[in-house]
Amino acid sequence: MTTISKDTKLLTLINVFTVEPAKQQELVALLIHATQSSVRHAKGFISASLHRSLDGTRVAMYAQWRSVEDYQAMRNNPTASPYMQQAVALAQFELGMYEVVETFSPAAA
Amino acid sequence: MTTISKDTKLLTLINVFTVEPAKQQELVALLIHATQSSVRHAKGFISASLHRSLDGTRVAMYAQWRSVEDYQAMRNNPTASPYMQQAVALAQFELGMYEVVETFSPAAA
Repeated sequence: MTTISKDTKLLTLINVFTVEPAKQQELVALLIHATQSSVRHAKGFISASLHRSLDGTRVAMYAQWRSVEDYQAMRNNPTASPYMQQAVALAQFELGMYEVVETFSPAAA
Repeated sequence: MTTISKDTKLLTLINVFTVEPAKQQELVALLIHATQSSVRHAKGFISASLHRSLDGTRVAMYAQWRSVEDYQAMRNNPTASPYMQQAVALAQFELGMYEVVETFSPAAA
């Protein structure tokens, strides 16, 4: 389980992969394997949440890291790169580094 | 605060806006106002979390709804549309509807 809050001052990575619907499941399986076996062992990793688009054309990873430095260190670690190369072969992707500005709850709780 | 879990069976909307850095703050302010005054009053709204990219070029909204139908009803409600038109004038955006496939925690908790 992941919590989103503006008070935690974490780095948020939002990575949206665009994929052929016939390959969405393969990409999902690859990202699960990469995160389980490699990414979640890295220093400074807080959480990751993997999403599949209902129309089959996208996969999105919402991840939290303690700092930009911790995330960059994982990216520079060669054990993660085979997975990244496989993901590049399956999908286009757009990666962004974010901070949480605000969170909103229902008006009538 | 927002919680991400695959067990809740919510609809997740991930909306990534691409914006000129000089207009990022204006877009953030518009989305805060739209969510506070309109979106969070809608039936089926669960949560929204607004993010600003560190490089200034993007804004991302991560939102949870009870169902696709509830989300579509909000989009079809005319009170939300002026904000959407203003957002379109400020930024390009790409909207996706997702379900959570898996969440990951650190290997060494």
